[in-house]
Amino acid sequence: MRDVAIIGYGQTKFGELWESSFREIIVEAGVKAINDANIDGDDIDAMYVGNMSGGIFVGQEHIASLIADYAGLNPIPCTRVEAACASGSLALRSAYLSVASGCHDVVLAGGVEKMTDVADATAAIATAADQEWESFFGATFPSLYAMMAKRYMYEYGLTLEQLSKWSVIAHDNGSKNPYAQFRFKTTLEQVMNASPVAEPLTLMHCSPVSDGAAALIICDADKAEEFAPKDEIIYIRASTQASDTIALHGRKDMTSLNAARVASEKAYKLAGAHADKMDVAEVHDCFAINGLILLEDLGFCKKGEAGKIVGDEEKTRIDYDDFVSVNPSGGLKAAGHALGATGIRQAGEIYWQLKQDKNCKGRQAPIKNGYGITANVGGSGGTVCVHILSDKRK
Amino acid sequence: MRDVAIIGYGQTKFGELWESSFREIIVEAGVKAINDANIDGDDIDAMYVGNMSGGIFVGQEHIASLIADYAGLNPIPCTRVEAACASGSLALRSAYLSVASGCHDVVLAGGVEKMTDVADATAAIATAADQEWESFFGATFPSLYAMMAKRYMYEYGLTLEQLSKWSVIAHDNGSKNPYAQFRFKTTLEQVMNASPVAEPLTLMHCSPVSDGAAALIICDADKAEEFAPKDEIIYIRASTQASDTIALHGRKDMTSLNAARVASEKAYKLAGAHADKMDVAEVHDCFAINGLILLEDLGFCKKGEAGKIVGDEEKTRIDYDDFVSVNPSGGLKAAGHALGATGIRQAGEIYWQLKQDKNCKGRQAPIKNGYGITANVGGSGGTVCVHILSDKRK
Repeated sequence: MRDVAIIGYGQTKFGELWESSFREIIVEAGVKAINDANIDGDDIDAMYVGNMSGGIFVGQEHIASLIADYAGLNPIPCTRVEAACASGSLALRSAYLSVASGCHDVVLAGGVEKMTDVADATAAIATAADQEWESFFGATFPSLYAMMAKRYMYEYGLTLEQLSKWSVIAHDNGSKNPYAQFRFKTTLEQVMNASPVAEPLTLMHCSPVSDGAAALIICDADKAEEFAPKDEIIYIRASTQASDTIALHGRKDMTSLNAARVASEKAYKLAGAHADKMDVAEVHDCFAINGLILLEDLGFCKKGEAGKIVGDEEKTRIDYDDFVSVNPSGGLKAAGHALGATGIRQAGEIYWQLKQDKNCKGRQAPIKNGYGITANVGGSGGTVCVHILSDKRK
Repeated sequence: MRDVAIIGYGQTKFGELWESSFREIIVEAGVKAINDANIDGDDIDAMYVGNMSGGIFVGQEHIASLIADYAGLNPIPCTRVEAACASGSLALRSAYLSVASGCHDVVLAGGVEKMTDVADATAAIATAADQEWESFFGATFPSLYAMMAKRYMYEYGLTLEQLSKWSVIAHDNGSKNPYAQFRFKTTLEQVMNASPVAEPLTLMHCSPVSDGAAALIICDADKAEEFAPKDEIIYIRASTQASDTIALHGRKDMTSLNAARVASEKAYKLAGAHADKMDVAEVHDCFAINGLILLEDLGFCKKGEAGKIVGDEEKTRIDYDDFVSVNPSGGLKAAGHALGATGIRQAGEIYWQLKQDKNCKGRQAPIKNGYGITANVGGSGGTVCVHILSDKRK
């Protein structure tokens, strides 16, 4: 397999983008990425795009053809991939494989979701759960993640204060991200006293309904060095993915995502760098509990200890350099969660962080080892996709 | 890139499968393919599945996770790809690239659609057209393809008799395919006098609404020789894809699919074999006119001449060996069109034909050069995916 690099990134603001359509936001992100990579549209050999449910949200399937058309990329091959909220990362992985294989040299990997145009987003999102055993009986994602949180609290003594601390940190970080949906800070009291959603989760433990798009330009590593100075190239050192039962009831353990363990172990092996080498991580906190669980499943702390980590003022500061910097973007909670775009946005943030880009002003993680990781989750953990990026090619 | 082979195939019957659910039919096809390849589920490293709109048809997205779960394939990576009615071929292409890259050795490439559970299939399918410029104003696929047919008749003098002949041949062939949705023969009068759908198309020029699933086992070519005797292995010699404007009005020409031309030219080059070397073809006749257009765009005859070919009793017989044998399965018209499954079913038919498998009894094409081709179309041509298979590795 060939080495693969990232040479450009662009995204829209995440949020309620009433004045832009589905097709406009993905083109906006794509054009920004192309400009950032300093290439022409003609240089792009193929496109992969992650989108969870254009069919339900905006009445549009066949979106890769639509985007190719509106971005002026015809007749290159354009493919949509879907794995619920992990769709973006799967688009990146598909793009990565198409370059690693030698089939394509320069590929746009994008993600997009326009969620605010639909009447009932919760019901639309619930199509990512098991329709016959979960969604049909009213088990939407807030309730599924609430069950995971309840069980986790019971097993490991996590307190509501610790869980809520996640959201406070997320908003702190998000306040420094100009692309974030929520740029306000919040307090422990505000999180704990917000409207209840599904016990123990309040509104402030939940990521929002978002419109947004993001796009990366990825490239054969040899060719990347033609396009960009070497110190501005970030390499994809691992792209892994694993599956688990789609329904929560099928799992041995509700307090851990087995697919995250499988995918991250494989990724660390491929990258030749383990959790302790990661300077920065973007983890999928669709609900606060999932952020905590992923810190454990990715190996940043032992099972049951994430609550203590989150409770530690020092360790959770972005600029603390003796523990991985988690979600400097604000994560899904504060940066927003435009489903199909999230995985690309996570990788884009790590790309910026490792390059120490100007876009990270005020939220730059200390880069010591030159590695960063993303973990993007579909459904309640039925799909997990992990990427490890690095400023080093080998 | 590594050479890639096909070592097994399985499919359900296509049709109105009222007694089986979405998850059951894809598992049925997958198990048949695994058995056919004479491997275990444990041998499979990854899965790709094509599906157009589980979200709208059965309220289920995140279907790769669902299928991995019900097929007992967790925790391997499972990815859904979508490009409307070309979704199946894109799953095959994604699987192909993952093996060619060296990332995976043995991959299941499946396709599935359960269409009969939804109230209005035509509206669901219309999400594959341009929502803002076509579907929203009532331009469903029958009407879009009717416009193409009208223009083609005007430009090239195609008669209604010639167009209708396509369906007569399709039903003749389908009558010999035990997996086909329609196993009855039809006459020119019946086709021409069937209920009008969108002038000039009658019901008998249109492919049906179908449930169905199909699965291929693909494999690194070196490894394939461990699993199967060499004369039972079929090789993927080219896997190409191209895009065009999603809306019909954006094209220079309504009587040709540019994406089919681009994808097939590239495929012939990669395979080192041109149209004249193809023994058998499965082309995407969602509407009869598209079958005619594809004969031209794939280079089997000159522009405007497909009507004459179809009118020639001798050339259109499956066992005629001086012109490519077209749609021995009965094509989408008679074999059925379970959207996401179609591209896999087309490749499965070519796999059977080139192996001269017992499943082709009564409809075996003469195999002289050992090449076959599929052309799978998404929407009105916004996506086209072409595969060339061969009994020869090089």
